[in-house]
Amino acid sequence: MLHSDFLQENPKLLIFLPIYYTLWADSVLTPTEIKEMETLVNKQNWLKKKEKTWLLQQLDPQNPPKPKELKAWRKEIKSLQLNSETSLTEIGVSLATKYASDISFIPKTIQSFEKTEELLGLLGKEARYSFQAGHQTITTSHHAEQNFEVKEMTKILDGRQVDLIKRVKTVISDPSFAFQEFESLTAQREQTLLWCQELAKQGFGAWAFPKFANGKDDMEGYFTIMETLSYHDLSMVIKFGVQFGLWGMSVFFLGTEKHHQKYLKDVGSLKLPGCFAMTETGHGSNVRGLETTATYNHQSKTFTIHTPNPDARKEYIGNAAMHGQMATVFAKLIIDGEDFGVNAFIVPLRDSKGNLISGVRIEDCGRKMGLNGVDNGVIYFDQVKIPKENMLDRFSSVNETGEFESPISSDNRRFFTMLGTLVGGRIGIPRSALSASKTGLTIAIRHGEKRKQFGPEGGEEVPILNYRMHQRRLMPPLATTYALHFALRYLTQRFLDRSEEDAQEIEALAAGLKAYTTWFTTATLQECREACGGKGYLSENRIDALKNDTDVYTTFEGDNVVLMQLVAKNRLTEFRQEFSDINMFTIFNYVANQAKTTITEKNPLIVRSTDQTHLLDMDFHLSAFKYRERAILSSAAQRIKRHIDQGMDSFDAFNVVQHHLVNVGQAYIERVILEEFQKVVMETKDQGTQKALEQLCQLFALHTIEKNRGWYLEQGYMEGIKTKAIRKEVNQLCWDVRKNALALTDAFDIPESCIAAPIAKR
Amino acid sequence: MLHSDFLQENPKLLIFLPIYYTLWADSVLTPTEIKEMETLVNKQNWLKKKEKTWLLQQLDPQNPPKPKELKAWRKEIKSLQLNSETSLTEIGVSLATKYASDISFIPKTIQSFEKTEELLGLLGKEARYSFQAGHQTITTSHHAEQNFEVKEMTKILDGRQVDLIKRVKTVISDPSFAFQEFESLTAQREQTLLWCQELAKQGFGAWAFPKFANGKDDMEGYFTIMETLSYHDLSMVIKFGVQFGLWGMSVFFLGTEKHHQKYLKDVGSLKLPGCFAMTETGHGSNVRGLETTATYNHQSKTFTIHTPNPDARKEYIGNAAMHGQMATVFAKLIIDGEDFGVNAFIVPLRDSKGNLISGVRIEDCGRKMGLNGVDNGVIYFDQVKIPKENMLDRFSSVNETGEFESPISSDNRRFFTMLGTLVGGRIGIPRSALSASKTGLTIAIRHGEKRKQFGPEGGEEVPILNYRMHQRRLMPPLATTYALHFALRYLTQRFLDRSEEDAQEIEALAAGLKAYTTWFTTATLQECREACGGKGYLSENRIDALKNDTDVYTTFEGDNVVLMQLVAKNRLTEFRQEFSDINMFTIFNYVANQAKTTITEKNPLIVRSTDQTHLLDMDFHLSAFKYRERAILSSAAQRIKRHIDQGMDSFDAFNVVQHHLVNVGQAYIERVILEEFQKVVMETKDQGTQKALEQLCQLFALHTIEKNRGWYLEQGYMEGIKTKAIRKEVNQLCWDVRKNALALTDAFDIPESCIAAPIAKR
Repeated sequence: MLHSDFLQENPKLLIFLPIYYTLWADSVLTPTEIKEMETLVNKQNWLKKKEKTWLLQQLDPQNPPKPKELKAWRKEIKSLQLNSETSLTEIGVSLATKYASDISFIPKTIQSFEKTEELLGLLGKEARYSFQAGHQTITTSHHAEQNFEVKEMTKILDGRQVDLIKRVKTVISDPSFAFQEFESLTAQREQTLLWCQELAKQGFGAWAFPKFANGKDDMEGYFTIMETLSYHDLSMVIKFGVQFGLWGMSVFFLGTEKHHQKYLKDVGSLKLPGCFAMTETGHGSNVRGLETTATYNHQSKTFTIHTPNPDARKEYIGNAAMHGQMATVFAKLIIDGEDFGVNAFIVPLRDSKGNLISGVRIEDCGRKMGLNGVDNGVIYFDQVKIPKENMLDRFSSVNETGEFESPISSDNRRFFTMLGTLVGGRIGIPRSALSASKTGLTIAIRHGEKRKQFGPEGGEEVPILNYRMHQRRLMPPLATTYALHFALRYLTQRFLDRSEEDAQEIEALAAGLKAYTTWFTTATLQECREACGGKGYLSENRIDALKNDTDVYTTFEGDNVVLMQLVAKNRLTEFRQEFSDINMFTIFNYVANQAKTTITEKNPLIVRSTDQTHLLDMDFHLSAFKYRERAILSSAAQRIKRHIDQGMDSFDAFNVVQHHLVNVGQAYIERVILEEFQKVVMETKDQGTQKALEQLCQLFALHTIEKNRGWYLEQGYMEGIKTKAIRKEVNQLCWDVRKNALALTDAFDIPESCIAAPIAKR
Repeated sequence: MLHSDFLQENPKLLIFLPIYYTLWADSVLTPTEIKEMETLVNKQNWLKKKEKTWLLQQLDPQNPPKPKELKAWRKEIKSLQLNSETSLTEIGVSLATKYASDISFIPKTIQSFEKTEELLGLLGKEARYSFQAGHQTITTSHHAEQNFEVKEMTKILDGRQVDLIKRVKTVISDPSFAFQEFESLTAQREQTLLWCQELAKQGFGAWAFPKFANGKDDMEGYFTIMETLSYHDLSMVIKFGVQFGLWGMSVFFLGTEKHHQKYLKDVGSLKLPGCFAMTETGHGSNVRGLETTATYNHQSKTFTIHTPNPDARKEYIGNAAMHGQMATVFAKLIIDGEDFGVNAFIVPLRDSKGNLISGVRIEDCGRKMGLNGVDNGVIYFDQVKIPKENMLDRFSSVNETGEFESPISSDNRRFFTMLGTLVGGRIGIPRSALSASKTGLTIAIRHGEKRKQFGPEGGEEVPILNYRMHQRRLMPPLATTYALHFALRYLTQRFLDRSEEDAQEIEALAAGLKAYTTWFTTATLQECREACGGKGYLSENRIDALKNDTDVYTTFEGDNVVLMQLVAKNRLTEFRQEFSDINMFTIFNYVANQAKTTITEKNPLIVRSTDQTHLLDMDFHLSAFKYRERAILSSAAQRIKRHIDQGMDSFDAFNVVQHHLVNVGQAYIERVILEEFQKVVMETKDQGTQKALEQLCQLFALHTIEKNRGWYLEQGYMEGIKTKAIRKEVNQLCWDVRKNALALTDAFDIPESCIAAPIAKR
């Protein structure tokens, strides 16, 4: 069944066929290839002249074999049903042997063929795959192979909140909560309100409020609700947060009994929709500079709320454009011309029919990148009078004689104390963000498992999750999501247990984890979008909404860059306090610790160690994180001090090191995250789960070290040989974690109705 | 005018007031502060007992001064109108001197005050700012201060395309092109079509086509048009690209004279809207695996186009859901049961009234993250017959006897040759992306200049662009935007001048620059969004649309990760060819070059050099980039070879090093970008412009080196002391470039109607 007359007549020439086919398979013969093949042909003294001529004719780049001929060659070779042949030469020998009667030329000629094959860099083993049916590879056969019980893992993730989580999931899985495509902004906002009303009916809105307001007095539960709702529509979550978290908690934490009695019940039932009016056009991050005024009039015992200039209008206020009837307004209190700093007041915006109160003007912020179910607005106050009792007077008040009273002397200090009580927002937001990451990763990982593309020559296509780059995109974020889950639980617990002493530490922790988690979410959802290709760009697959709705999380509740500086400043204060204790023992201790680091950690054997046991060792990870946290803080402190000592203004000095300070914050937060994750790993009893968590913890740790390797190398804490070994270990961990990946997202136990993406359909 | 009776009676005590005020200003007295102050008070033997008692009473944390009292203290100190005093002690002395009659106690007491001040770590200079009116700092006084002519820069950016650019800008600035908020998907798509029709009327659609099709035969101009249109709505740009670039160019490049005569005129005028139907549900990146069939029937001289299974439906096809009347369909050609690989055919979808052709079924892809003006659809073919002449037959055809003919023997090779002619898409997309980056940066930088937030104690608020972190966010992207502008111009020129020899190199270059630029755009617009805070989240400020519309650029025209591997493989091929030349001279040369690197570049003086002249030296930058490009390629090749030599399947070997390969691609592209940028800098005559470009080029280079510092440190190419110096230099360059920033975005000369964002309004 030979295709060419000439070959049919001269079957010995078939020994050339595999090499010829392989060279022509890319349709191009390079000059080198021609030269080598000519040499090979001319060397064969068993060939007749016309055979040589024919063979040389087949090497003319101007005159390639016809497509049909090339196909015939291939078919011929495939028909051999290759067995043990591993080089093109061997395949050629088999072919010739099959058809030629005289094969005595073979033994003496093999060597020259093999040499040519090698010179041309043709990989026989590779080339033969195109002649075979199946072709298995390590990459092809890698697959999901979970080694733990999903339910056990879910139990650990849910912890003691399991019942409440189930309850919330049941509600948001109800058909009335099905995702919709909205016809207009108004339709979306109305639906969002309806959903929030339903949640209020379920008692979720009042959860953190006192019993008399139909609440459960359960702040922890409130965070759990926020987190679990965040598997569903995020406009709904933010509107929920505005109403019950910002508006409600400001009444609860800044007001006193009379306010609680008067408002909390209606806030919790959503009978009284409200706003949290702090940000102004001119002052967002720097809220200390707010300009709205609340002027006290002792005669009428009222405050007059006023927007003195356009930059002082309240801006971006959730619930303001459509539904809000009241607002907690932050304004500078003026008594007798004297400014007592920013205080909080309850100010009506609309009557219960929705008509604006006289003196209040509201504009709609319009379309946003996301969260379009939330009706943000701009508010102007034109001399709006409110009764004295509307001052939220937990931290300051005006007494019977019209004098200002407060246990906190300093206006700034008082304002920041007030803000401090509202730190809960910086816990709710990252927990909501992390839920969005979980949903995004669930979608992307399911897609990566189902989507096949490319494969070995002649073999099946491979799930894209088997590709190393795809694993690099999704496995470290999966590990970090687990890490952050436990870190945010720790933050919540610290917040619940807070005392006056650790209030500032917890504020810094919340600020840092808010910034870290929301940046992580933005980056992760971007990866998920790209990892799902064009499918990830379709709104039906939900990554669109997840990404765009959470995008502003890096901005609200405090811009992340500003927050990270706040964290760093808090660390610097602690650092300074340690020294200004003027306690010789402390300083001695610190110096001794530094020296110990140098001696044990910078030991040449350790900085160069590539031993796997060492690289995977949790103690090594934690010391590396702690070393970074400490060293980077100490060098920032030294730099600032040096600049100031040299006469630089401290404002300038802090600006010069701003980039450094963000790293101080990051390093601190990363240490906390790792420490808490390691604790969970060590406390986990179930062996399968423990092993799976340990692997994630190792991946989080090594991936973070890898990310910071430039710094570690600069410090001499590691040498290149070690950071290279770490990179290899990260790759390996990604490869291994990939086996559990699907199960690890199953353990999030996100309702299928919330995942919703067709590409993630089970 | 003293506020407290006791102080009024005992004015000597005023020496304590500045320290007391400063300690109480944060409302908290720490135990250390109390202890130190008690010591200070008790030491003063000039104090009467009741004075001491009074002073000690003021240190009770349970009993802080009243808000009003604290304000009075401050007012008292402020009334001094501070002059030369630089410590709290000196301020206290001035106060006491002002009111007390007997000041003889002062000289002997000063030292103990100063010591306490120091022990408490109170920075007098800092504290005094709160008692002053203005407070100037370096950060406050930094400002825009351009040192070049904007028009000169625009001239360099526009190059020889200046007239066409002006013409396009005039069109898109017309009121009929004003941005709108759309009521529905349909409304948006219709408007997008209208805009494209208007552009066709202006002759822009046919620009690259031959004269007989009313074109200008000007491919370069076509790219300029795409780039300039991209300052406006990007749905319009992509629909424009689908019609004239994908649909039109496929007819132009894959068809022959008969197709050109028949179709190009109507394509260029948009009388004949069409699609480019390559991607299928099952095959996006791996288009070689397309499954749609085109079966030849010799009797009727027709092809039957068919979708054999749901995964083979054409997916995500632009123009398909609503407007497309024809499509270039990629399908496997079957003749007599034999598969001749993927070929291209013109297939009608709708008649001129918009009714679907029988056998064609189309579904709407629905809402996407962005580009909602483009009507993407899914197409199923059910045995649709087309005449033989509809085969686009530049690279293959069916002859009169019904046999397949092609100058390219291999099906794969032929397909990739076809794709190669369509590489223009990988030039148009990054050029469009870069325009979006330019708009985003213009908005963010203008906002950063206008927006003020925070400031030194007692001083004015500062433009946020003066903050180092803000500069770090926006200045390197600004520099990279300039760098990419010139790199893409270079790519375009290479494409226009291409020959068969360099076709593959140019394909790799286009793939790499497409991936690099679109990733850059995604990251840059994310930074711009965050840098504009909540304002950046409002749709009116355009970053929403810019980010979401360009987000899929990293996916279409080839997924970036896949493209970067393609680039890396191309580099490996060149690398291998260099060696398989079996030219001893080449190898010797290479080894000698490697050795030279080691000797001169790894010279201990250079790897540790922190000399500014060296760090800013363009030769140093280029050598560092080249070294990385070469070393990373060589180590990737070695790793692959080692794996294969050890018996690993090559498919697996390439998977193991996938992450490494993406870096090979990046390093290559970065070297090209720097090289081209440096050329432009050296060729620029105008001094101011040249200086400004040089600074941007240095920033791009050093920022890129900083990004890769982990790698350079691992290689021993630099030591920590040098990478730290580079970081400092990057900070300084950001600080300096900030002065030009506004002018550098002005030089983009984007029509104000396209910038449109209220926060960027002039």
